Amino acid sequence: MQQTMFIRFISTGGTIDKIYFDEMSNFEVGDSQVRHILTDGRVSFDYDVISLFRKDSLEMTADDRERLRAYVEQDDARYYVITHGTDTMTETAAALRPIKDKAIVLTGALSPARFKSTDAVFNVGMAVAAVQVVSPGIYIAMNGQVFAEGEVAKNREQNRFERSSSG
Amino acid sequence: MQQTMFIRFISTGGTIDKIYFDEMSNFEVGDSQVRHILTDGRVSFDYDVISLFRKDSLEMTADDRERLRAYVEQDDARYYVITHGTDTMTETAAALRPIKDKAIVLTGALSPARFKSTDAVFNVGMAVAAVQVVSPGIYIAMNGQVFAEGEVAKNREQNRFERSSSG
Amino acid sequence: MQQTMFIRFISTGGTIDKIYFDEMSNFEVGDSQVRHILTDGRVSFDYDVISLFRKDSLEMTADDRERLRAYVEQDDARYYVITHGTDTMTETAAALRPIKDKAIVLTGALSPARFKSTDAVFNVGMAVAAVQVVSPGIYIAMNGQVFAEGEVAKNREQNRFERSSSG
Amino acid sequence: MQQTMFIRFISTGGTIDKIYFDEMSNFEVGDSQVRHILTDGRVSFDYDVISLFRKDSLEMTADDRERLRAYVEQDDARYYVITHGTDTMTETAAALRPIKDKAIVLTGALSPARFKSTDAVFNVGMAVAAVQVVSPGIYIAMNGQVFAEGEVAKNREQNRFERSSSG
Repeated sequence: MQQTMFIRFISTGGTIDKIYFDEMSNFEVGDSQVRHILTDGRVSFDYDVISLFRKDSLEMTADDRERLRAYVEQDDARYYVITHGTDTMTETAAALRPIKDKAIVLTGALSPARFKSTDAVFNVGMAVAAVQVVSPGIYIAMNGQVFAEGEVAKNREQNRFERSSSG
Repeated sequence: MQQTMFIRFISTGGTIDKIYFDEMSNFEVGDSQVRHILTDGRVSFDYDVISLFRKDSLEMTADDRERLRAYVEQDDARYYVITHGTDTMTETAAALRPIKDKAIVLTGALSPARFKSTDAVFNVGMAVAAVQVVSPGIYIAMNGQVFAEGEVAKNREQNRFERSSSG
Repeated sequence: MQQTMFIRFISTGGTIDKIYFDEMSNFEVGDSQVRHILTDGRVSFDYDVISLFRKDSLEMTADDRERLRAYVEQDDARYYVITHGTDTMTETAAALRPIKDKAIVLTGALSPARFKSTDAVFNVGMAVAAVQVVSPGIYIAMNGQVFAEGEVAKNREQNRFERSSSG
Repeated sequence: MQQTMFIRFISTGGTIDKIYFDEMSNFEVGDSQVRHILTDGRVSFDYDVISLFRKDSLEMTADDRERLRAYVEQDDARYYVITHGTDTMTETAAALRPIKDKAIVLTGALSPARFKSTDAVFNVGMAVAAVQVVSPGIYIAMNGQVFAEGEVAKNREQNRFERSSSG
């Protein structure tokens, strides 16, 4: 007897969901692009997508992170993919450290999912594969790599995630 | 001291690389789309892409599979992502079973990478994440799932990969 | 008092609407892509899209062309954009010659609209602009040019439309 | 003996060429997307693309418009397609009014050409068709319509171009 895998997707905002409004000539965080990505990816597992925030990650507060941690902790899924802005992704990952016995992968994008050239689809694909294969714990999937939480930092000059020496 | 991860990509043909020629009103296998996908994915690991075949997977022969197995066995990389047509992907995976101490993930696409709506980018993202996280062995990443070789079959009516009961 | 412009779009099949089915590893003519193109184009005129055929243009018969001509002649619009396969587009244009007092632009695509790289959107944009600016008559909009019917031929080796000397 | 049509494309900036930089979480005008659009459109006429400005159209000054007008007036082409921001496109069109015996079509985009969903390709297709069919004069091609200069205004609330009553 087989069980179908279930993944809970939580969107929190960030570049991955950014949209451009001509009227204001600026960007805002739009609705989550994860469903479109999973549809194109023809995934056959069960999933749900909930939107907790629609924020630039620089606007994420300690309260937001606590709310996210509490949400995951009380929820009954085993696998989580969290889409998040890149600037504070590692801080949010650290805030989730107390959670036990769940596999949680954070990902996002350096170029919005609504662009023709974007890393969003590739990154969500990575997160989906990683979350079902890793041991329980907190991970970040960006720039083609799966990092354990605490062993990764965003190099802002290079605009990419790298293994950190203090890991 | 850190080492940069290296992944060897091997393209063998299949729907992922299909192209349409108006002159003949039919499809042919074009050049590998993996480099474009990795560029959009902004990967920061080292990699190489070699093209061993440009075939529909229904045209892959036992000799082709033996050639692929021999190539991987003599090669010095640890991580392999092989793009392959979906119809005989599980047969090629089985043919690679003798290879030890390497992580090998086969993937492909149900809709060509050159289409606006394609699973190719998502699938290569999955394969890249899986190959660096799994234990050595042969795997298939399709339809949002990472299957161990021998536990998966293509359901042709549903046009998707499923965990097989005989696994 | 202003009237809103109305354009009748008629799809007949051809490469522009081609879709790829993995199950059969071949192409078929899918549903018309014109509505998607007009939505992305943010057009503000009134329009309707009807599908008369779903054929490769090599399969279009004299009866099909007569049916198309009769449809347009009895219809009450002034502006028509007809999407058509490229191989016999000029023959269908010639068959519409008896129609008076209407502007009719035929267009299509050398690469399917469902591809990332396609001329379909550009060509429909050309046809929409041409149909509202030209004098009544039959025209073909392809390869960046608006040709009068009778002055254009498809160069099959170059896979493009050219002004014909016998025009 | 046939002459090949020649179109001079002039890019001045605007939403059509906008690009998103994650580092700063804001938009800037990038390089002209016209060549990519014409390549995908498989155009067979001769053309050249020059970049005069890279500005939001709200930043265009009277001096900029005078420079543009002078450039076109002294240049020897007959057909011009000018890509421009939408907010002051009609003002720039008005500034070109003194130019005689040339067909000039201004166009742009409400959604950047680098987005998956954009009107840029459709609009450039419209401008290319219009410029070769219209009588000499100044025109704006937006929202599926070809407007004569002086008969069009941008409706900012609806974010689209409309025929103006004062035209």
